[in-house]
Amino acid sequence: MAGRREDQNGFDYRGIDDVVHGRVRLSVMAYLSGAGAADFTLLRSKVGVTDGNLSVHIRKLEEAGYIRVEKKFSGRRPLTICHLTDTGREAWIAYIARMEQLMRPDAAE
Amino acid sequence: MAGRREDQNGFDYRGIDDVVHGRVRLSVMAYLSGAGAADFTLLRSKVGVTDGNLSVHIRKLEEAGYIRVEKKFSGRRPLTICHLTDTGREAWIAYIARMEQLMRPDAAE
Repeated sequence: MAGRREDQNGFDYRGIDDVVHGRVRLSVMAYLSGAGAADFTLLRSKVGVTDGNLSVHIRKLEEAGYIRVEKKFSGRRPLTICHLTDTGREAWIAYIARMEQLMRPDAAE
Repeated sequence: MAGRREDQNGFDYRGIDDVVHGRVRLSVMAYLSGAGAADFTLLRSKVGVTDGNLSVHIRKLEEAGYIRVEKKFSGRRPLTICHLTDTGREAWIAYIARMEQLMRPDAAE
């Protein structure tokens, strides 16, 4: 799906979306690409990070418009639900295409 | 090739090899996985980085044993040749398997 490899810039590191690429954000995006949405607590356990660390990355994804954060209550329990946005899904698909191009350059030619 | 997805830790960010994952190092590894070896100057232009920045990343890859650096001369011109090692190739293959697992979780099940 990556299409044609650009000979000159095929390996340029700037072609990799840094917002998605950070390891924690990548894991969040990977999870949300399947689940669509997830509570903060679940995401934290899936991705394997501490509270504060996840908050920082969630904010960065939110600022890029890749996720939308919804605060609500389940009874008395506060929930923070992260939803993958359409922009986020597009960014994820573009990221995968770029990574596949890097990881399988022969297949892209 | 990723094999079976581990249900509990399938999205854990710590499963991603940080030495390979940094964008510049990833681009270097991607290039060397095809070329086997490359002169520093060529790598710099392929990857799109400045001199000093590439040196830092080359050193980190060398310290991990993923590349071997050879210094030689072509006439009077000094060359710094970076070779992908067997360890580096194994790390690259393991990295791709891990990334494919994250990027295509459905395919890995």
